Amino acid sequence: MAGCTNFFLSVFDYKTEKYVIAKNKKVGVLFRLFQLGVLAYIIGWVFLTKKGYQEKDDSIQSSVITKLKGVALTNTTDGGLHLWGAEDYVIPSQGESVFFIITNFIETPNQRLDYCAESIKVPDGHCREDSDCTEGETVIAGHGIKSGRCVKSTGTCEIYGWCPVEKHHKQHEVLLEKAENFTVYIKNFIRFPKFQFSKSNVLDTNNDTYLKRCMYHDTHNPYCPIFRLGDLVNWTGHSFQDMAAKASGGAVGVLIQWNCDLDKDYSKCNPVYSFTRLDVNSNNSVTSGYNFRYARYFKDTAGLTYRTLYKVYGIRVDIMVTGEGVFICDMILLYMMEKSTFYREKKFECAKYDSLRCRRNKDIERKMPHKERAPKRKATWKGKFTELSTEKSTALN
Amino acid sequence: MAGCTNFFLSVFDYKTEKYVIAKNKKVGVLFRLFQLGVLAYIIGWVFLTKKGYQEKDDSIQSSVITKLKGVALTNTTDGGLHLWGAEDYVIPSQGESVFFIITNFIETPNQRLDYCAESIKVPDGHCREDSDCTEGETVIAGHGIKSGRCVKSTGTCEIYGWCPVEKHHKQHEVLLEKAENFTVYIKNFIRFPKFQFSKSNVLDTNNDTYLKRCMYHDTHNPYCPIFRLGDLVNWTGHSFQDMAAKASGGAVGVLIQWNCDLDKDYSKCNPVYSFTRLDVNSNNSVTSGYNFRYARYFKDTAGLTYRTLYKVYGIRVDIMVTGEGVFICDMILLYMMEKSTFYREKKFECAKYDSLRCRRNKDIERKMPHKERAPKRKATWKGKFTELSTEKSTALN
Amino acid sequence: MAGCTNFFLSVFDYKTEKYVIAKNKKVGVLFRLFQLGVLAYIIGWVFLTKKGYQEKDDSIQSSVITKLKGVALTNTTDGGLHLWGAEDYVIPSQGESVFFIITNFIETPNQRLDYCAESIKVPDGHCREDSDCTEGETVIAGHGIKSGRCVKSTGTCEIYGWCPVEKHHKQHEVLLEKAENFTVYIKNFIRFPKFQFSKSNVLDTNNDTYLKRCMYHDTHNPYCPIFRLGDLVNWTGHSFQDMAAKASGGAVGVLIQWNCDLDKDYSKCNPVYSFTRLDVNSNNSVTSGYNFRYARYFKDTAGLTYRTLYKVYGIRVDIMVTGEGVFICDMILLYMMEKSTFYREKKFECAKYDSLRCRRNKDIERKMPHKERAPKRKATWKGKFTELSTEKSTALN
Repeated sequence: MAGCTNFFLSVFDYKTEKYVIAKNKKVGVLFRLFQLGVLAYIIGWVFLTKKGYQEKDDSIQSSVITKLKGVALTNTTDGGLHLWGAEDYVIPSQGESVFFIITNFIETPNQRLDYCAESIKVPDGHCREDSDCTEGETVIAGHGIKSGRCVKSTGTCEIYGWCPVEKHHKQHEVLLEKAENFTVYIKNFIRFPKFQFSKSNVLDTNNDTYLKRCMYHDTHNPYCPIFRLGDLVNWTGHSFQDMAAKASGGAVGVLIQWNCDLDKDYSKCNPVYSFTRLDVNSNNSVTSGYNFRYARYFKDTAGLTYRTLYKVYGIRVDIMVTGEGVFICDMILLYMMEKSTFYREKKFECAKYDSLRCRRNKDIERKMPHKERAPKRKATWKGKFTELSTEKSTALN
Repeated sequence: MAGCTNFFLSVFDYKTEKYVIAKNKKVGVLFRLFQLGVLAYIIGWVFLTKKGYQEKDDSIQSSVITKLKGVALTNTTDGGLHLWGAEDYVIPSQGESVFFIITNFIETPNQRLDYCAESIKVPDGHCREDSDCTEGETVIAGHGIKSGRCVKSTGTCEIYGWCPVEKHHKQHEVLLEKAENFTVYIKNFIRFPKFQFSKSNVLDTNNDTYLKRCMYHDTHNPYCPIFRLGDLVNWTGHSFQDMAAKASGGAVGVLIQWNCDLDKDYSKCNPVYSFTRLDVNSNNSVTSGYNFRYARYFKDTAGLTYRTLYKVYGIRVDIMVTGEGVFICDMILLYMMEKSTFYREKKFECAKYDSLRCRRNKDIERKMPHKERAPKRKATWKGKFTELSTEKSTALN
Repeated sequence: MAGCTNFFLSVFDYKTEKYVIAKNKKVGVLFRLFQLGVLAYIIGWVFLTKKGYQEKDDSIQSSVITKLKGVALTNTTDGGLHLWGAEDYVIPSQGESVFFIITNFIETPNQRLDYCAESIKVPDGHCREDSDCTEGETVIAGHGIKSGRCVKSTGTCEIYGWCPVEKHHKQHEVLLEKAENFTVYIKNFIRFPKFQFSKSNVLDTNNDTYLKRCMYHDTHNPYCPIFRLGDLVNWTGHSFQDMAAKASGGAVGVLIQWNCDLDKDYSKCNPVYSFTRLDVNSNNSVTSGYNFRYARYFKDTAGLTYRTLYKVYGIRVDIMVTGEGVFICDMILLYMMEKSTFYREKKFECAKYDSLRCRRNKDIERKMPHKERAPKRKATWKGKFTELSTEKSTALN
């Protein structure tokens, strides 16, 4: 019964750690220097340098629209003079963030569905006699379905497919010579949804001719959104001519980074562009290039379909947008963080017996009506609470 | 030798912090209230409100398929009556998450590769005499390659290119008037790979006509995946007619957010749609619109190529999917967290000398065979371990 | 005045927590075991297993290029024999990370802009008399604009549109039978920008024929980047034939995961592929498939436009790349972490009075010139700093 009451009473006792104080100036100064260091770290590094009081939004919303300008003339034995505009050499034409620019091409005009010999370049199409060409079988990595006959003149199976089959000759010069001078206009709109902040990489300017004349350069003109294709490739550390001609194409990444401190002025939030070649391996050896095929279909007067097949080589550009915006966080939290630092400093109260301060403590003590007067001390005591508990103990003893 | 043994023995001493207890009810109650507050915070806020026991998966996998419906009739002086279906006005046609809808267009039919005068709108094409037009030079931002002659009638260089060159007249009315009524069906499949959870934004319903008749509305019909294009644009806070006609196009973002508590019922995990205009600057001024060109190629009976060039204006829609799923985390961890809170509460044992409890402590002590009996105490002592060490010390003294 | 000086002096006092030591071997061993456990956890789990000393880069940059190979022959009553190559059955043709493969199609050739009866399948086009067909009104979910007349023979309104209207018959067999054997070559280049690390999923090999012959298999050949389309679909747990024929299409996700420990050898950083069906609901019921329409435009000798409309069904493949790279972090931080663990171990100095060690302490004390000699002890004391403060207190008492 008495135990229960005791237990219940003791629930409301206040327990705290006991501190000891060393009146050693050397150690004390070191200790204070350490505390100052922690404080300086928190205020200087976390708050001022790293801006720990700011809220971060890394869920950037981005929309990229691209537009290419420039024309190039090609002169091939098959096709003669041909003028290429952006509507032809950019695929897809609608200005997406990933696009392909044709620099070389192989044209196979007037293909019709018919029977003809498979290309000698296709291993599975080789034959010596008709029995090597099973009728109805697909030529692996080939151009059609085997008809069952072996064409002696070429040593390949006869196939049903688009005839004549594509010529497998490799281009050694850039057909679209002027491709280096094409310009890429990148419009990038971003939004930090948390802060309702929108911005574009195109400067708000009243000067209409600015966008017509400017050209991006990382130091001279870092905010112009128009890039010369040749420069854009060269900035990756690879030569445009090598990529377009020898390597028959490649993939280039344009990285747009928006790291914005939204506490600062609107005009200080600007993108930083960087350029990398994407299709490289560790030893910087490039892979076999980038090409694909597409066809244009026509109908003759009899209504029969024929087509022109294009195998195109070129440069693929991937525009990748990353970024984060920071903004001052809730004042309440900020206030709490300030307080807590302050509080931590104030937490370790005077615990050492010393004439002036402990006299004050004793005076406070005396004014508390519900507490017994402190007895004459025999033992050492180290602070207010230690003292109280000491009294109690000695009393019980 | 003895020192070594002593050191070795002392390795297995148990060190703990020393506590003092204040038998002050006011402070004690405050202290307990503070502890209760921390406990309430952990249980109420971290566990119940913030669901701290749940695991998060923010690597949402998403696939978006779109389909547009609706037809529009245009009547131009050049082309006459023309009916536009989704196969024509949506680019690309395969229903991707980023697509473009034509609302206006300028058609330049029957272009052939030939020599003709450059457009008067191109500054670099202006000339006074033949020497202004260097043969073989590209007209900057123009339509072809200079032939070296100056066409007096227009005051521009003669070029080799697709002739006649595109007419630069601006549209002032929306040609595809009915574009506002086109419907966009957005199928969005998501997956939280960590929890093997899949869902679609299309309701599982046995009612076949539901999808044929419903139309999304943020309050009346928030789960219908079919959107009227005009509404979709207007919900961004911009007028469809303004965007499509005056501003000659724009970009709209449709954000689908999946924030799912997977502890709840499957039917509670639903997407929230929001709509923003992407091509705006801070002052909400819109940029110059969105357009691009594409061409359709034909061959005449003689096998010569000609084409129809389209410059199309319109609305680009970017569908962006974000989201995260939360699910109850490992029971072991949960158990551990519960235990640790429990443990923390239990950690601060009775350390104050008080008749009942410390008598128990002494009894326990007596039962330990390897320990000397506690001597009569002279000094104060504050707890079990303090007591033990005190005994030892006095014994050694 | 004296108070001020006292306060100023006391600022440089060193405060620390007071420890007590229990010379109880059982408790001591338990305590050491607990400490060893914590240490083992930190070293074994955090450092060795979880590699807590490594820095993480989860902002992977990725570029995906795809290429399909294979041909298929179709034989339809309308179109006769037709050979499909990758340039036809892959949309878009430029090898993006999201692409569509045609497996079935409905061809509507020779459509011209004209007046004809609406399809019976369109509910809004049904009519009994001319007044049911308001002139100039769009047929909802239909193919054109009502002309105002009702065609008695079909019971539908006459429309102006592309005539004849598309046939609404459903395919029940896979037209591109061989689609299962198409191969998908996925080139994936990744980069961890923080560590300047690039890699491709295509092995660096001198064996030219490796890529020509290999075929991906999760156990036999996990690093070959060429996938058989049928396998790719079947690995999602759904049958290719079902998806391509019965369900008339679907969407498949190919997830490429790069989780690389860049401390290890370059060759150890390899992608892991996984395959999921994206267009499923919770009950694994598939949705109505995936289809879209596109048209090819032609001009007749009179210059009039006609077209062939294709409604295509098929399989959409979304290639998603995720990953993170880890690398050993700053040596300074690592050193600090090691030190702090070391320091924590060293922090709790001998605090117990014991002949050897405390004699050493006293010796050190004696050598400090600015400190009074330790008095003969009467009371117990527990450590260096306690002792010092005790001295001071007794002195002041």
